[in-house]
Amino acid sequence: MGDYWCELAWLGGASAISAVLIREAGGLITDVQRGVPCSPDATRLSGLTLPGLANGHSHAFHRALRGRTQVGTGSFWTWREQMYALAATLQPDTYFELARAVYGEMALAGITVVGEFHYLHHDVNGTPYAHPNAMSEALVAAAREVGIRITLLDTCYLHGGFGQPPNEVQQRFSDGDGEAWASRVSSFHVDGRTARVGAALHSVRAVDPRSTGIVAEWAAQHDVPLHAHVSEQSAENQQCIDMYGMTPTLLLHEHGVLSERFTSVHATHLSGVDIGLYGANGCTICMCPTTERDLADGIGPARSLRQAGAELSLGTDSHAVIDLFEEARAVELNERLATNTRGHHDATSLLQAATVNGHRSLGWGQAGTLEVGKVADFVSVRLDTVRTAGASEGTALESAVFAASAADVHHLVVDGKVIVRDGAHRSIDVASELTRTIALVAGRP
Amino acid sequence: MGDYWCELAWLGGASAISAVLIREAGGLITDVQRGVPCSPDATRLSGLTLPGLANGHSHAFHRALRGRTQVGTGSFWTWREQMYALAATLQPDTYFELARAVYGEMALAGITVVGEFHYLHHDVNGTPYAHPNAMSEALVAAAREVGIRITLLDTCYLHGGFGQPPNEVQQRFSDGDGEAWASRVSSFHVDGRTARVGAALHSVRAVDPRSTGIVAEWAAQHDVPLHAHVSEQSAENQQCIDMYGMTPTLLLHEHGVLSERFTSVHATHLSGVDIGLYGANGCTICMCPTTERDLADGIGPARSLRQAGAELSLGTDSHAVIDLFEEARAVELNERLATNTRGHHDATSLLQAATVNGHRSLGWGQAGTLEVGKVADFVSVRLDTVRTAGASEGTALESAVFAASAADVHHLVVDGKVIVRDGAHRSIDVASELTRTIALVAGRP
Repeated sequence: MGDYWCELAWLGGASAISAVLIREAGGLITDVQRGVPCSPDATRLSGLTLPGLANGHSHAFHRALRGRTQVGTGSFWTWREQMYALAATLQPDTYFELARAVYGEMALAGITVVGEFHYLHHDVNGTPYAHPNAMSEALVAAAREVGIRITLLDTCYLHGGFGQPPNEVQQRFSDGDGEAWASRVSSFHVDGRTARVGAALHSVRAVDPRSTGIVAEWAAQHDVPLHAHVSEQSAENQQCIDMYGMTPTLLLHEHGVLSERFTSVHATHLSGVDIGLYGANGCTICMCPTTERDLADGIGPARSLRQAGAELSLGTDSHAVIDLFEEARAVELNERLATNTRGHHDATSLLQAATVNGHRSLGWGQAGTLEVGKVADFVSVRLDTVRTAGASEGTALESAVFAASAADVHHLVVDGKVIVRDGAHRSIDVASELTRTIALVAGRP
Repeated sequence: MGDYWCELAWLGGASAISAVLIREAGGLITDVQRGVPCSPDATRLSGLTLPGLANGHSHAFHRALRGRTQVGTGSFWTWREQMYALAATLQPDTYFELARAVYGEMALAGITVVGEFHYLHHDVNGTPYAHPNAMSEALVAAAREVGIRITLLDTCYLHGGFGQPPNEVQQRFSDGDGEAWASRVSSFHVDGRTARVGAALHSVRAVDPRSTGIVAEWAAQHDVPLHAHVSEQSAENQQCIDMYGMTPTLLLHEHGVLSERFTSVHATHLSGVDIGLYGANGCTICMCPTTERDLADGIGPARSLRQAGAELSLGTDSHAVIDLFEEARAVELNERLATNTRGHHDATSLLQAATVNGHRSLGWGQAGTLEVGKVADFVSVRLDTVRTAGASEGTALESAVFAASAADVHHLVVDGKVIVRDGAHRSIDVASELTRTIALVAGRP
């Protein structure tokens, strides 16, 4: 139980509200009062307080590659070679340690829930672990130790490309077929309070249409989120059209994937029909702009998707950067680069993508807004650092979205518990753990 | 006199060197030794030490607009209205205070020299100050108090558009004609050790061809840098072609502007001929990617320019962000977005843009590298923060360019003096000064 008094808070409107008291009990928000003085019993949160940020798309182990994949020249595919070399070395114990550090970095960046798009299921050569969900358990345990929520998006990954068997590394990813994937996932159980399970299709390259239907049906039966990488690269589109005579989005639609439960990750290279289908089916599009620029994917049609009726969420994906403010502003700024005009997505819509939309996409409908009855997850951002200084009350949301960075996060509460205080995680030395665990899995400097 | 021992230092090669001793006396580097142990007398610099960063293009007062110009929708021209409203209020005393805070933010970001593209010369309605260079003096004094170098690029700004008189605000910018500009600038003197004067043309819109020739000749006679905004927006190109039958770059070339002394700022929308001319004349192109994305200018042809023989430098321009690491990586990352391929500019070439090229463009040929005889200007970047943790010795340059932020700068030395220690400016509370001075000039929150 606790009272938090916010200098400024975003309660969902077009600008921030000053002097807001948030009361919490049992992990839920029990009261929100505006324009009240700070009481001596309340924890005073300076700057701007937002609902917890949702990281809609993560591959935790990619964090170990940050910086190291930027040497010389290279393509998406040479990057993938380095990523696979790393994937070949991880085990449940080492992945737990790495993920704990990476989720710690997320907590420091104001992230209260992560969607872990997880396909590193089996031991090397594809041998199942004695506990078939040992890797999933490691990731859920890592999030629990850090104190953030997780949706473990258990990802079906069967093929090395359209009609191709998995390669040596990819054997770790494959359950063999959709039924075996569903059987394994059905045996994985989590607490439900701070961890949930969702389903994912790696891509139309890695999951055949029959198995796609099985995964989609499993997600519908269990009423859980369903995610898939879609059209990140033009090559995938062309191969899909060559194989099936339709775009990846159309193929997924034909096999029952598109619904309000579905999140299309990246969705960078879309046809007009694809965009219309996402809008009409109420899908979410999870954009990962800092990864999409790192991997030279391109700029997705964010504005058109929103106009068609789709919702946006945001993910840090490869963790080239872990900063949802940078992801949020990049949606608008990339659209400026693509069109030479400003003003496609305002600060409010970008904050919605970073909070309520991301939570809903990950199956947390009771999170992502500062309202009575919602979970007590929130983050405070300093407006008095060199980056944010000069923010005015009327433009605090714009300053947060367009000027703040993860380094400006100073307080994080998840499920009513203080996880980050004054910019430091309360139980983990995150930077040291990142250094130690990355040396462990990717080699010492 | 001082000894600095660097855990890692960039001495100009393709990777960082470990255990480097830099000795300084009288503001110059007197010795550089590799692979030596840290002596008890030396200041130990952890992480990666780089030559001081050069901010090639600044309009200091724009910092007061950060965040505030992002409300709703708007174009480059609506942004310019807000910028002009601010420009109308500044006076030498208030601009000194604001600039001191902004240059303080630059120091904290590792910037040791700023190129201030300055055209706010006169009092409201264009009345000259009693001291005609009072505004220039305020800016030079601000840099001196902060402890960084400045090149005051005194900017000729005569017209409100092709063939148009200056509007009400622009009267403050105009000297009337090129001769009057040259006369005023010739009466402005600085110490030369940490402050220098250069010349600038606002743009082909704001300076007619005859005055352009006068400014170019003045710069040549005084052997100082010459800068100009060029082709930031397509509209400028079209108007120039309509008026003169040639692109802005060709027009400048015809009036004696293009040389090794010349820096073309932005140069976003260029023809093949323009690119060839910049290359053949050994010009520098100062890219300001975070401003160019903020203002929806577009992505300039950085790779083609380098291939043609031009050099790149970097500027924070409107100060939507003050972070030269972000500017540096954006050159590569924007080119990835524009081409869907990776690997156009490696970390070394981007660091050269941020250091030696920027210094040369601003008239500091004896700065920008860690070599004996060069000025003792350097910056240390932490490689053990949540952003940079996991950097390896072999990829430290890549981690700095692609993962570090201004928040990772911990030590800054300029002219042999410690300016920033452990991430704090030694004499100015920069964040507080930003808050105070922005409220002063742009209104309280």
